[in-house]
Parts: sequence; C-alpha cells; structure tokens
Amino acid sequence: MKAKEAASYLEQVRTRNPLIYNITNTVVANFNANGLLAVGASPVMADAPEEAADMAWAADALVLNIGTLHPEQVESMFAAGRAASQKGIPIVLDPVGAGATPYRTNTARELLKELDVTLLRGNAGEVSAITGLESEMKGVDVSGDQKDTAVIAEHAADVLGTPVAVTGPVDAVSDGQETYQVHNGHSMMAKITGTGCLASAVAASFLTVSDHVVHGAAAALGFYGTAAERAEGFAANQGPGTFQVELLNALYHVGDLDLRQSLNMKRVEKNDE
Amino acid sequence: MKAKEAASYLEQVRTRNPLIYNITNTVVANFNANGLLAVGASPVMADAPEEAADMAWAADALVLNIGTLHPEQVESMFAAGRAASQKGIPIVLDPVGAGATPYRTNTARELLKELDVTLLRGNAGEVSAITGLESEMKGVDVSGDQKDTAVIAEHAADVLGTPVAVTGPVDAVSDGQETYQVHNGHSMMAKITGTGCLASAVAASFLTVSDHVVHGAAAALGFYGTAAERAEGFAANQGPGTFQVELLNALYHVGDLDLRQSLNMKRVEKNDE
Amino acid sequence: MKAKEAASYLEQVRTRNPLIYNITNTVVANFNANGLLAVGASPVMADAPEEAADMAWAADALVLNIGTLHPEQVESMFAAGRAASQKGIPIVLDPVGAGATPYRTNTARELLKELDVTLLRGNAGEVSAITGLESEMKGVDVSGDQKDTAVIAEHAADVLGTPVAVTGPVDAVSDGQETYQVHNGHSMMAKITGTGCLASAVAASFLTVSDHVVHGAAAALGFYGTAAERAEGFAANQGPGTFQVELLNALYHVGDLDLRQSLNMKRVEKNDE
Repeated sequence: MKAKEAASYLEQVRTRNPLIYNITNTVVANFNANGLLAVGASPVMADAPEEAADMAWAADALVLNIGTLHPEQVESMFAAGRAASQKGIPIVLDPVGAGATPYRTNTARELLKELDVTLLRGNAGEVSAITGLESEMKGVDVSGDQKDTAVIAEHAADVLGTPVAVTGPVDAVSDGQETYQVHNGHSMMAKITGTGCLASAVAASFLTVSDHVVHGAAAALGFYGTAAERAEGFAANQGPGTFQVELLNALYHVGDLDLRQSLNMKRVEKNDE
Repeated sequence: MKAKEAASYLEQVRTRNPLIYNITNTVVANFNANGLLAVGASPVMADAPEEAADMAWAADALVLNIGTLHPEQVESMFAAGRAASQKGIPIVLDPVGAGATPYRTNTARELLKELDVTLLRGNAGEVSAITGLESEMKGVDVSGDQKDTAVIAEHAADVLGTPVAVTGPVDAVSDGQETYQVHNGHSMMAKITGTGCLASAVAASFLTVSDHVVHGAAAALGFYGTAAERAEGFAANQGPGTFQVELLNALYHVGDLDLRQSLNMKRVEKNDE
Repeated sequence: MKAKEAASYLEQVRTRNPLIYNITNTVVANFNANGLLAVGASPVMADAPEEAADMAWAADALVLNIGTLHPEQVESMFAAGRAASQKGIPIVLDPVGAGATPYRTNTARELLKELDVTLLRGNAGEVSAITGLESEMKGVDVSGDQKDTAVIAEHAADVLGTPVAVTGPVDAVSDGQETYQVHNGHSMMAKITGTGCLASAVAASFLTVSDHVVHGAAAALGFYGTAAERAEGFAANQGPGTFQVELLNALYHVGDLDLRQSLNMKRVEKNDE
C-alpha cells in the first residue's frame, strides 16, 4: 500500500461522513464521539437491546467495545452484530481488558465466534489473551517490541481467521497473509484514556471506504498516529490535558497531504519461524 | 423580548444557582455538568428509579435526554417527570435521535404524552420525526434553512401543545403563538458532541427564572450562541478540541453586558401558509 | 508528617503505577481515568457483578463512588469490596450526594457497615448526612469553614470507626486521634465536575504506598491541591475549560520537589469541646 491509497481513504471518510454506531464503554464515549466527529465521521452511541439492531441497520460501521461491559450491553452487541452482518457493514471488535477477568476474555471470544467480525483491534496483552498466545508461545514477549507486535497480529489472524490490528509503540495489522507495521504515533497516547478505543473507531471509519481490511486498518492507524505526532508537536510537553485537546484538533486538521508526507509504515515478510 | 430581559435571566441564574437534575446520556454527562457549572447552575445526574422522584423533588428543573436510553432509565424519567410536575418545576425534553429508531421516536412521544413537558428542544430532524412533519408537509426541507426552522417549531408547538425549540444554524422557539428566531451561534458547535444536549440543559436553567417559556428558552439559546461565538473567537480555528475548552470558558465569562451587545434574535410573524 | 514523607508517597506512586479499580459514576469516569494516568497510576473501570470480584483481585486499590448508583452497580460494589478486603487492598468510599436522597444516604451507610472501608472521602454535607451530624450538632455550620471541616472529620471518624477525609476550601483528614488540615487547593476546583471524585481516586493511589491512612490521605490531598494551584496559575482566569486541562497537566508534572515547596498542611489538636 502506498501513502496515496491511505490518503484517499481519509479523503473519502471526510466526503462521505459515515455513521459509526458504537456500543462502547462509559469512560471513553465522549472522547470517541468527539474523535469521530473530528475525523469527519458521525458517531452514534446506543446500548439498549430494544434498538441495537435498528441502529445497526442505519449505520455504516459498527464498533463493539467491551470496556465497561454488562450482560444487557453484550446482548445488544450480538443483536447489532447480526444486523450489521446482514446489512454487510464492517464490525470492529475492541476487547478492552481481555485477560484481566474471565468475563472479558470469554465475552471477547464469544463475540468473535458468533459474529462476523471484520477487524479485531487490541493491544498485545488483550489479543494474546484471546488467542492464548501466552501459553502457546512462551518465548514471545507480549510487552510490545517491534517484531513481536507483528508476530502477535499474524498469529492471531491465523488462529482466529479474522484480520487483527495490534497497537502499541509500533502497530501491526495482519490478515495472516499480508502484514503491515505502522511506526506513526507518540508515547503521550498512553498517558490519556481511550486512545486505543478511538483507534478502533477510526479504523471502523476507514473500513467504510476500503474493502481491503488490512490496508484500511493500517491507513487508519497511520493517520491516527500522524495526528498524535502533530498533537504533541503543538502540546510541547505541557502535559496530557493539552495533548488530549490537541489530538482532537489534529484529527480535525490533518489532511491527505500531511498524511502522504508523514505516513510511516512498511509491509513485513511473513513470519515462518 | 428585549436584550435587557434576556440579560436579567442570565443574571438571575448566576445569583440563584438552580439545581438542574439531568437524566441524560453517558456520552455528554461530563460536558453537560461542566457546562451547567460554567453557566452558574448546579448539575446533578441520577438514573435509578430508586431515587428519581426524590431527586426531582430536590431540584429546580428537570432535563430528560434520551441519548442512551434504556428501559430502567425511561422508568426513572417518568418517575422524575411526575414528581417535577407535582413540585411545579420546569421539564425540558431532549429527544436525541428521535427518528433514528422506533424505540427513540416512541419513547419521546410517550414522554410528551404522559408528562407535562415545559419545553421540547431538538434539531429539525428529531422534532419533525416526533410530529410526523415529514409525511404531512413534504415541501418542507427539514435540513434547516432559516424559515423552515421557525415553521417546524411553530408546527410542532401547535400539534403537541407544548413550546418547542428547534436548534440549527438558526434556532427557533415557538409556543404556537409567539415565535422567535435566534441567530447567535457558530458552525463549530456541530463539530463537538453534546452541544445540543447542553443547549437543553442551559434552557432548563433559564426556565427556572422565567415563567415565559418562549422568552426564557430564546434567551438561553441567545446566550449559548453568544458564548459559542466568543469561544471560536478565542479558538481561532485551532480545532474542535480547543473550541470545546473555550466554550466552557465562554459560558463562564459571558456576562449580561456581553449578552446585551451580542444578542441577535427577532420575533417572526405567525406562519399561516 | 513532614513534606518529605508526602513527597516520598508521590514518588512511590509514580514508580509502582498501582492499578486503581474504580466503580464510579458515568459523569466523571473519563476525567478520573485521565487524572489517575496523570498521577502515574493505572485506572480500570468495571461495573458488572460478573467480574467485580475478579477485577478487585487484580487491583492495588478500590474506589467506590455512588455518583450515579443503581442496584446492580451497588451489588458490584459489595462483591468488589469483599474481594478487596480478602486481598488486603485499600478501599476508598466516595458517598457522592449522600443526604440528597435516602437511597444515597442509606447505600453509603450500608457500604460503610458491611465493608472494611479504609477511607471515607466526601464534602462536609455528605459526611454529615452519613453520620447524622446535622441533627446532633445543630450549632455546626457544615458549609465548610476551617474549624468545622476538622470537627466534622474527627467526629465522623469517631462515630464510624473509619478514617475520614472532608474536602472543601480547607480539607481535613482524621482517624479520630490524629487530624490534619490541608490548605492547598483553589476555588476553581468547585467550578468543574469531578474534582471531589478525583480526590478520592488520588487518595486511593497514595494509600497503595502508605500504611498510615491519615498520612497517606493528607499527602494525597496536599499533592492534589498543589496541582490545582499550579493549574490555575497557568489557566490565569481563562475559565473552567482551561482549568480542567491544566489540572491534568499539573497532576502529570508536579513532582516531589514542587510538593515539598508547596505543601501546606498542619496537624490540629484533638477537639474536645
């Protein structure tokens, strides 16, 4: 994928203003809604089983985020997910905290099993917890060095049969065949809550304009990381409060030319170790 | 209504610090609480049926916002709404997403039917969905040009027997007899989430000091729009992150003299087409 | 306690990055998560009874905040609280709105009765509502002058057998024997929502590194107030939007040297009036 392709996805998101339906956690709902608006998408949040399927039918993509899951919300996730598949819109699953409790790990696995998830987006620990990578591959350090992120993404995509994005200091996106590393981003992203969740939502926006999941997700993460770089450029170490404000500003202002200049990703060879 | 009257409402809100009880959505709760504090009101949020009536009895106004509704929350809305009517405090209904799903449209209609709602505040699409204006008046463009906002508000107030505020590029407030257009505001308001929800909450604050619903609501929207103009003046196109911060600053600092200088509203003749 | 001790707690929090499990309200969840990250702790939020005990077992401290309580969440509070006691981690209870409705007052009392709460952190009105101080001591003004905050904290600690922090213009922390007043802070803290809630969460962070509850809580409030002073120094009366941003920045940047210079607390004599 060339930067031109990534830039064209951004431009299409801004032109089409896709409606992104988020069943998400109460911690990041506001930040994610503002982030989606800044990117050029339209966010909607709704949790009730009474309307989950209807809302999915009205949307252009669905984001399922288990950050503050409870049984009724999970019921809505299944209902919305089934409607999304019938309509043929992308589904992004963000397994927040998978591995921290059995309820989270099991729910993430059931959603992956029962629904036609388009992209799984998590950090190294969450994705490894879902696939059981920790026990299978003890030599792998899941704390996130560059090679391992790609290994985790590729392994998870193989095991799950679903494209996977693993974010961290270096992001990786893989469908088991094609794997990209994205080097854009900034360490301040770890100092505010919800940057991972918003990455999932931005990826969902890009998947509304790209049929190639790995390309669409990698482009989204490259754009998102570019915005974070720009944000900290303006924030200039004032702190996480200012960084959060500047991240929303940057998501609004980073254009296709900025993206073409700053995008830093590369395709990595298939790992056959 | 003269600017002097609007300014006096603002001054009274700041003096009395009314307690505004919000049953609202999880996306905007923080922003709305901070917005109400900035205006000079005291916010309280509570969702449980176990305390909804008690909280309404303690409050000076009630805001019902269906942005992330679920059955238990709706039960609380009815309980709080009945207590509010018994106490005689204003009720503002914000029908977020009415028209998007039957659950939302029907819930908004039931709340309007069963409770003594003081003011319905929504955008053109939401209000039209509730009244069924789309099917009745096909010639009306509900996307919000100036004349139509007033037409929609006046029509809805007639049909529902309730004063209605329709916000958009130009706001309109009507009780079916008296209709005002409010020209204050800024397009950046559409780039952050919750500006409509906060408009409803600010209107509730003003209705605690004004028995004239149309005047109180129009004054609130004029004040709110004035704050948005000032906010973008300071934000100077830095982006939606900065605009959100500056909007809270402006709601805190805009005073009665600022309001008298900037208020841009006019009464419109009754539409008899 | 000397400033050196307070500064050492801050340093240890930043080194150990304790995991703070918050069962909290939907209004402040985002702000509290960002505040904890800024301090150097790791926040996690989870409400479901299905995982509350598991999450408490994974955590270093537990914060129970009843700001938007509902029965299922209260069930989770009890489950998490019991697990926390078994594991031996500190529990901070924030009785938001106690006194406003019987449901809140009673829930706060039951949590205090059934769980081994390490610290109760509220404002003068909330703490007095729980202990029934208003009826017992009619001469006491609970609106918060300096002496009374200490009186309220000391009285509550005596009655409840639990250390208590009462925040306000002057904070007070007492276990019934030892009482400290903390004079750090800024009046702008009352102009944004969630500053009290975040004070509870910051206190929980400090209690993970201090076995002396009164010292740990007083150090946390001194640090928090110092950050607020610095924040308004930078915000320079721009308003509550900017103050909120600068408070997160200050929580991130205030170091042990800053704290040693600015800490303004004193031990007060036991009140035997």
